[in-house]
Amino acid sequence: MTSATSTTRPVSTGDVTIAYPDLVGFTSEVFERQGMPPERARLAAEALCHGDLTGVRSHGLANLTRLYLPLFAEGRANAKAEPRVLADRGAGVLIDGDRALGLWHSAEIMDLCVERARAYGVGMVSVRNATHFGCAGFHTARAVAHGMVGVLAGNCGQQRIARPPGARPALLGTNPMSIAAPAGPHHPFVLDMSTTVVPTGRIRAAERAGEPIPAGWLQDADGKPVTDPGALDRREAYVQWLGGSPETGAYKGYGLALLVEVLAAAVAGAGLGPAPEAFAGDGGPTGRDDDIGVFALAIAPGELRDGFRDTVTSLFGSLLDAPPIDPARPVRYPGWFEAERAERYRREGVPLSAALAAELRTVSAECDVAFPEVVR
Amino acid sequence: MTSATSTTRPVSTGDVTIAYPDLVGFTSEVFERQGMPPERARLAAEALCHGDLTGVRSHGLANLTRLYLPLFAEGRANAKAEPRVLADRGAGVLIDGDRALGLWHSAEIMDLCVERARAYGVGMVSVRNATHFGCAGFHTARAVAHGMVGVLAGNCGQQRIARPPGARPALLGTNPMSIAAPAGPHHPFVLDMSTTVVPTGRIRAAERAGEPIPAGWLQDADGKPVTDPGALDRREAYVQWLGGSPETGAYKGYGLALLVEVLAAAVAGAGLGPAPEAFAGDGGPTGRDDDIGVFALAIAPGELRDGFRDTVTSLFGSLLDAPPIDPARPVRYPGWFEAERAERYRREGVPLSAALAAELRTVSAECDVAFPEVVR
Repeated sequence: MTSATSTTRPVSTGDVTIAYPDLVGFTSEVFERQGMPPERARLAAEALCHGDLTGVRSHGLANLTRLYLPLFAEGRANAKAEPRVLADRGAGVLIDGDRALGLWHSAEIMDLCVERARAYGVGMVSVRNATHFGCAGFHTARAVAHGMVGVLAGNCGQQRIARPPGARPALLGTNPMSIAAPAGPHHPFVLDMSTTVVPTGRIRAAERAGEPIPAGWLQDADGKPVTDPGALDRREAYVQWLGGSPETGAYKGYGLALLVEVLAAAVAGAGLGPAPEAFAGDGGPTGRDDDIGVFALAIAPGELRDGFRDTVTSLFGSLLDAPPIDPARPVRYPGWFEAERAERYRREGVPLSAALAAELRTVSAECDVAFPEVVR
Repeated sequence: MTSATSTTRPVSTGDVTIAYPDLVGFTSEVFERQGMPPERARLAAEALCHGDLTGVRSHGLANLTRLYLPLFAEGRANAKAEPRVLADRGAGVLIDGDRALGLWHSAEIMDLCVERARAYGVGMVSVRNATHFGCAGFHTARAVAHGMVGVLAGNCGQQRIARPPGARPALLGTNPMSIAAPAGPHHPFVLDMSTTVVPTGRIRAAERAGEPIPAGWLQDADGKPVTDPGALDRREAYVQWLGGSPETGAYKGYGLALLVEVLAAAVAGAGLGPAPEAFAGDGGPTGRDDDIGVFALAIAPGELRDGFRDTVTSLFGSLLDAPPIDPARPVRYPGWFEAERAERYRREGVPLSAALAAELRTVSAECDVAFPEVVR
């Protein structure tokens, strides 16, 4: 099973299904209750529901009560944010995000990249003072609608949960990055990945499900594998780098995390993981993902040459046509499974686990927003 | 041992040491004998000797007789190349590389990115019809001299040696990518990596040394680990993705390879790995790295804000200061070891293995270029 499919758990008793527009409408109203203007609330709701719609549940509505509502409650996200342009060089723009909710603001900055790429061939927006953007692939896919390539990366501000190879303290976050590209008539290519083996959401999803995690996701202070997902939030374990052991490329996963730290945070002047204050405590996972830095880039091949659509049609079509080892498991590419699932869930409704539905009913009561009609 | 250090083999009997300027001078003359203009030959020589200078010998002079001289001999690289600008949108430029030797041309396109980034905040150059660029980090580090961030990625043209997860045929190359960033008074950050577990040069270096490779680098047609490095060129094994098994992120390594395929080749309209003709043969590793696509990007933080130098000084200084698990093994970052080694070898001379020295003596005789003085 690929990581692209493994976040979908089977629907079990007590689970409910809700029509996609109703789910977005509900979530949008909840965000409006936090003080967000309606258009931004709507965009944020689409970004958040994108996780459930595509089956990437670790980044969906499960984070509403865990992450986004607390951000507002604690004043760490600003519902009335007014992001400001600090510098504008045409193709390159620097913005102070004013703690805008990343769920909508990262979509807006991707749209700005697209606008600049149309004029200059490439457009880049760098943001400081940003907050959590949810599924990075939701935002990069916006460039695809314009026939462009979209790239997005974010560091985790001052949150530190992964250790540089050989270091005692945790100094870096999971530092997600995404690229999306058109694929002609095929589903768009959307890579959306943390630079650690898995994002923390996958570990917490296992914890909620009461399931152990594979060796290779977490390690203890001595570097030994940890299979209890609860160890992360007990501060007893560190997330491991993509690449696993030094021999098989841990230095590359670490290097990719630094790539994101540089592109997203150092360019913008946002909060950094590696900082002197990280050495004060016991070295365990620490810090909050405040003052996140975000890097967004759009490339407009159509402004440089004709034929890009034919190129990507052939590229991704050839992957889909590749003879598989197991005829029952055809060859695919990142984004394909998510798009298939989204098509089905738009048609049939979005399944929510019983536990998540219960959480959302509580939100419904607390925010005085009617819970959406249950399809089944 | 990290991958950053593991490419250095100890100097043994018969090895020779040559002063760095003499080694570059020799290599430059060899390239001139292939018909390259002196300035380009010199730049290409610096790029090639960079591998030996930094200890990344898999990408150094060992490739002169294996890769670069055959490229000229077979007419696959053009010594008198005249790359042409196909489109220029200010920040974004598309170039036909005219089969210019990537060793010098990728340096030139990085310099063009720097020029455009100074004007627009960001600069991107996309190249088709490119050839092998050697150490990607040599080229990205050129941006660092201007206080900028440099990014470079190249696909492998129509060379196919890695299989998409679940696919029978090989469809992609090792697709290298690099980022370099200033680090204030510290050594620059230079990540230079293939999106497979290791580049093919590491596997071939093990073969030349008569050493087995670790499980996890190569797999046979059934997905079983292969530890005989010779299996690659016997077409009996495929390079594995960064991430290892599906459970620990192989889909990410595959996704990063597609990221490079899109940025470097699809944008430019260069040769692609995944293509219908790949299904014609037995599915084994195939194809030549002709019509390579290259993506280069420079970001000029200094055009967007003040204080970038302070930011990266703190970021990379904090990594160097991080308390290590083992006091004898301080925490470092990609590029640090290579820079240390380069400092030493510039001072003491560059060590070459006896086997490599013998190869270069043959080149010396064949090209009628005096072999440089041996320091010891």
